[in-house]
Amino acid sequence: MTELPPPPDASFASDNAAGVSPEVMEALAAANAGPALAYGDDPWTRRTEALLRERFDAPVESFACWGGTGANVVGIASVLQGWEAVICADVAHLVVDEAGALSRFAGVTVLPVPHERGRIDPAVLEPFLHWLGTEHHPQPKVVSITQATEYGAVYTPDQIGALADAAHAAGLLVHLDGARIANALVATGTDLPTMVRDTGVDVMTLGLTKDGAMYGETVVYLRPELAAHARFVRKQAGQLPSKARFVAAQVLALMEGDLWLRNARDANVRATTLVERVREVPGVVVEHDPDVNSVFATLPTAAIAPLQEWSFFWPWDLTVDLVRWMTSFSTTAEDVDRFVAGVAAVVARHL
Amino acid sequence: MTELPPPPDASFASDNAAGVSPEVMEALAAANAGPALAYGDDPWTRRTEALLRERFDAPVESFACWGGTGANVVGIASVLQGWEAVICADVAHLVVDEAGALSRFAGVTVLPVPHERGRIDPAVLEPFLHWLGTEHHPQPKVVSITQATEYGAVYTPDQIGALADAAHAAGLLVHLDGARIANALVATGTDLPTMVRDTGVDVMTLGLTKDGAMYGETVVYLRPELAAHARFVRKQAGQLPSKARFVAAQVLALMEGDLWLRNARDANVRATTLVERVREVPGVVVEHDPDVNSVFATLPTAAIAPLQEWSFFWPWDLTVDLVRWMTSFSTTAEDVDRFVAGVAAVVARHL
Amino acid sequence: MTELPPPPDASFASDNAAGVSPEVMEALAAANAGPALAYGDDPWTRRTEALLRERFDAPVESFACWGGTGANVVGIASVLQGWEAVICADVAHLVVDEAGALSRFAGVTVLPVPHERGRIDPAVLEPFLHWLGTEHHPQPKVVSITQATEYGAVYTPDQIGALADAAHAAGLLVHLDGARIANALVATGTDLPTMVRDTGVDVMTLGLTKDGAMYGETVVYLRPELAAHARFVRKQAGQLPSKARFVAAQVLALMEGDLWLRNARDANVRATTLVERVREVPGVVVEHDPDVNSVFATLPTAAIAPLQEWSFFWPWDLTVDLVRWMTSFSTTAEDVDRFVAGVAAVVARHL
Amino acid sequence: MTELPPPPDASFASDNAAGVSPEVMEALAAANAGPALAYGDDPWTRRTEALLRERFDAPVESFACWGGTGANVVGIASVLQGWEAVICADVAHLVVDEAGALSRFAGVTVLPVPHERGRIDPAVLEPFLHWLGTEHHPQPKVVSITQATEYGAVYTPDQIGALADAAHAAGLLVHLDGARIANALVATGTDLPTMVRDTGVDVMTLGLTKDGAMYGETVVYLRPELAAHARFVRKQAGQLPSKARFVAAQVLALMEGDLWLRNARDANVRATTLVERVREVPGVVVEHDPDVNSVFATLPTAAIAPLQEWSFFWPWDLTVDLVRWMTSFSTTAEDVDRFVAGVAAVVARHL
Repeated sequence: MTELPPPPDASFASDNAAGVSPEVMEALAAANAGPALAYGDDPWTRRTEALLRERFDAPVESFACWGGTGANVVGIASVLQGWEAVICADVAHLVVDEAGALSRFAGVTVLPVPHERGRIDPAVLEPFLHWLGTEHHPQPKVVSITQATEYGAVYTPDQIGALADAAHAAGLLVHLDGARIANALVATGTDLPTMVRDTGVDVMTLGLTKDGAMYGETVVYLRPELAAHARFVRKQAGQLPSKARFVAAQVLALMEGDLWLRNARDANVRATTLVERVREVPGVVVEHDPDVNSVFATLPTAAIAPLQEWSFFWPWDLTVDLVRWMTSFSTTAEDVDRFVAGVAAVVARHL
Repeated sequence: MTELPPPPDASFASDNAAGVSPEVMEALAAANAGPALAYGDDPWTRRTEALLRERFDAPVESFACWGGTGANVVGIASVLQGWEAVICADVAHLVVDEAGALSRFAGVTVLPVPHERGRIDPAVLEPFLHWLGTEHHPQPKVVSITQATEYGAVYTPDQIGALADAAHAAGLLVHLDGARIANALVATGTDLPTMVRDTGVDVMTLGLTKDGAMYGETVVYLRPELAAHARFVRKQAGQLPSKARFVAAQVLALMEGDLWLRNARDANVRATTLVERVREVPGVVVEHDPDVNSVFATLPTAAIAPLQEWSFFWPWDLTVDLVRWMTSFSTTAEDVDRFVAGVAAVVARHL
Repeated sequence: MTELPPPPDASFASDNAAGVSPEVMEALAAANAGPALAYGDDPWTRRTEALLRERFDAPVESFACWGGTGANVVGIASVLQGWEAVICADVAHLVVDEAGALSRFAGVTVLPVPHERGRIDPAVLEPFLHWLGTEHHPQPKVVSITQATEYGAVYTPDQIGALADAAHAAGLLVHLDGARIANALVATGTDLPTMVRDTGVDVMTLGLTKDGAMYGETVVYLRPELAAHARFVRKQAGQLPSKARFVAAQVLALMEGDLWLRNARDANVRATTLVERVREVPGVVVEHDPDVNSVFATLPTAAIAPLQEWSFFWPWDLTVDLVRWMTSFSTTAEDVDRFVAGVAAVVARHL
Repeated sequence: MTELPPPPDASFASDNAAGVSPEVMEALAAANAGPALAYGDDPWTRRTEALLRERFDAPVESFACWGGTGANVVGIASVLQGWEAVICADVAHLVVDEAGALSRFAGVTVLPVPHERGRIDPAVLEPFLHWLGTEHHPQPKVVSITQATEYGAVYTPDQIGALADAAHAAGLLVHLDGARIANALVATGTDLPTMVRDTGVDVMTLGLTKDGAMYGETVVYLRPELAAHARFVRKQAGQLPSKARFVAAQVLALMEGDLWLRNARDANVRATTLVERVREVPGVVVEHDPDVNSVFATLPTAAIAPLQEWSFFWPWDLTVDLVRWMTSFSTTAEDVDRFVAGVAAVVARHL
């Protein structure tokens, strides 16, 4: 049996297995100069707030948080009350991968609905709207969507707009979990005003950790009045960074220029190349072209474990031999070459 | 247009629109003799505890609560922890009709699953069992079923047993919402040991309010060790009755003899008669024979509102012209006669 | 050693050890006539709402609940949000005797403060008012007082007014736990408008269980806008009675006439008599004249247990030999005679 | 009026106004090499776990969290249940400065008790121990202490041991909020085994942010069985760092050598010098010698605002003209010189 090729330097397990953009490391070092008051009372945070108003071209209010689960909790828990409910896809990170954080913290009900590659349709709201006003039922207040979705699909601005119109017509708000918002922006060739402001999103998590930052996710309220309670909820949710200048410095390093978009574009491009290449490998099936940086492939059952051993990645649904491969800003063309070579070699043994 | 017949004395809106069995009223009056310590430290409560051990033929621990939503909260919240989750049908009272009480009180995640007339199949547990042990996912701990279901179907003991076996094999517990347990017992010709003890149910709400009581639902733990924290959770959930003798006196009045079963049988019989009779009415369709005391019928759209006005009942799903009619222990044969006559008269006008 | 006299028929352990006023039992039986929609959609509840508007002489909104702990949770949790806090005496029922129900259900912080016989002074609010607006601190929103207090003291309307003025000036609301509000009204010779409406109380629990009812406590919002979310919170807190007519019937039986005040007056009078009489017993010290129906007495240490065995009552603070005796509407003059005789006989043996 | 001297480079507002130790910055840069699985499944985290076992000389389980409030929530919420309660000083960070995070997340009751410079005495537990086992009362389960306290005092190991003995005897656990544990260790000349393991502390927050780290606080369980649920609670509390290697790298940089102790010693020394020097300034009173790095001083009322304007610091209790000054690892001798000069100059103007 021939030797396997050397594995790639990069990990295809997740975009959060990547390190930190060099420019971000430099910004962290530069921010480490002298004292600065804690908890966001510092010049870096002020500049970040101004920058986000510029990037959204709207009077947004922004609140730096530690991580993505926490930022989703803060964004949602600050705009609804304990007897209200959130509607989201049954594969939403909120449902599947946040350990029930929102219900634990805020006591609210999460109502999972069907989806298409992670995207939900305005029609799914309808049955729950009949619950409004009747004391026996949880009261829907927020529709939460993920952009790009957990299945690597992207909503068009029109799709978000239609969902937001349906939500708003019934008095509901729209939350967007933007853990990969940059990947979605470059995938659609749009910008924050088009994708978020103009579609009617009310509050979002703007995630940069998967896009080259070390840590720190920002909750952005599109209308200032929605942020009225945000600072209290953020502190209570354990999401107020003490030396906050170091979160702000990262946002500035990524978003003052276009590093955040370049990083996302690089990641998306690698995924596209990866799909083009692995589709040529007999035994590998990729149903959907990747919208962003995640690739879902089916492999021969017996190939999965040895391939993971060679270069680790996560299974997605082993009952149908489906695995997920992710690229990141730091994935190189050579990483893709090597990974495809390894896939080909391992799968060939198990056809 | 001919006059409509006189409406029935009974309400077909719900079994909780009925009053209280005369024997229960008498027992309440009899219990009002002299002082008794509050909060369950009284002879009536002691007798109830012994009676339930007899009826279940098992060393059950029982805790009187005020109402059904509260009793479900107590039963479930006392056997799981904040990071754990409950699996139940997406039409469960717990999901649809308790305003999110469990998540609000206990912070836990509720995972709704598909069902057949309200009954869930062991196979629906499977995807969630993969979540066990992984910190990112809510940790399933309790499967909650309703007997009889919200759709008026009844699980057989074998069906409950199969579900409990699947749950227990994965370390989960089974909760049974028995708001209409008496109706289910008489429908299946079984008893509490057969239906609950031998199937592997771990904790249940034993409901009597819909079966002739004024108020008071009892949480029953099939194994004493499961009840270790129950008294603290009950108090904290606001479900500890102060003058508890009056709850216990009702349980005794209903369950020392077979009044609770006679009441349930009467209700079930009226529902069966109702279905037999309305099926003869052109324009009325009843898909399922009633297992217990609820009847789901489709009517001509235009007939629904005038019929409600004549004798009120609740719609179930107006998008398909489906309504629900319920009988109770106090529904008489003449009530059914009159109701059918009214249905026939109103529907005839709208064919 | 001489025989002890026969113990009283009544219990001096608590006013909730008493039974139910005969007029209430009659009203329950009378309400058991025909069907009535559940959950408060019935004529008895409508009459109760109107009656309370009349008794308060204000456009109050009222919501029947099952019990006192639950009613306090509903009243408070419906007017504050998860990051807000409640200030109350460190002996408040809310702190000591409700098992942490409010924090469990609503996640809010309870801030206990010092008191004089259970009464708090406006000055205790001051340090917490500095917390307002700063995200690090819980945000005080509600001051909760108990009338009559857990120590059997009564606030004058002026005292409540001063506290409410201080609270309102800082944007806080006032909640009144009125588990024994009738006793306080007759003790001060005032009425609900004077004691509650004119002093500035925002929301209260109007308790009747200790005053002759079987069960059922009512949350009353003095201004309708405060009740905006009450029905959702009540349902979620498991406090929405199903056959609600039976709660309403009790309120009507007690409050349409002056039965609730007569019952309270009877209880208060018995406590006054009891104090006058036991003060003549050598070895018994009663520091405070009772404002209402609870008596706090110190006894010789060795007398406490045998006296409890003869006629049970609860200790209050055994480190200082302090016990609590309570009278109720059903305590007779003869009960007091017998109880005093027993106290005298037992204490005499242990001087 | 003479010119004021130039203000210090360092801030005396708080030790979290300092930046990051250069060695920590270097370690972060070094850790940014190649991919690493997220969420703690990385070699840095493994090394940290081993290192902490070494430093505690015990089989401790450790869990990296983002920040101090979150780490306290994780540590406590993972060892008690919803109906249980925490006892701590009424000035504890947990009570005053964490916005009610613990009650919000875990629903538990916090019972504040009196203290001496932030330290609580075993005797304060006593009244609450009578609550154990009675369903009406919150059930005390954890005693939480802060070391060093919010008042800058330090518990001796004997004091902690006495408290832990009292707690354990009643079945309670001891939590230690060690946001400034290094300062306490060098102040007492002890080590982690002596201060924490041998005294009987059950779970602690080991804080490094105020001691030279950028972010990241670690929850340490002294006995592995206490950590059984920690990973679920951490994730649910939004405290699981994604790129966890960067938290671990900081712990290693500080604790593999003695940097964490040197940093703490430097901070403490500066505080001692500061007190010695300002005590010579007429008009400045420092009641207590600083145990660690916080100094509480009273100034002439009129001097406070101008001094804050010259070099900002936080007031502590303006009703008694008390302010707090804090030093950090980065405070230099020259910073102290300049600060004292400024204090002297400003106070002189307002005597």
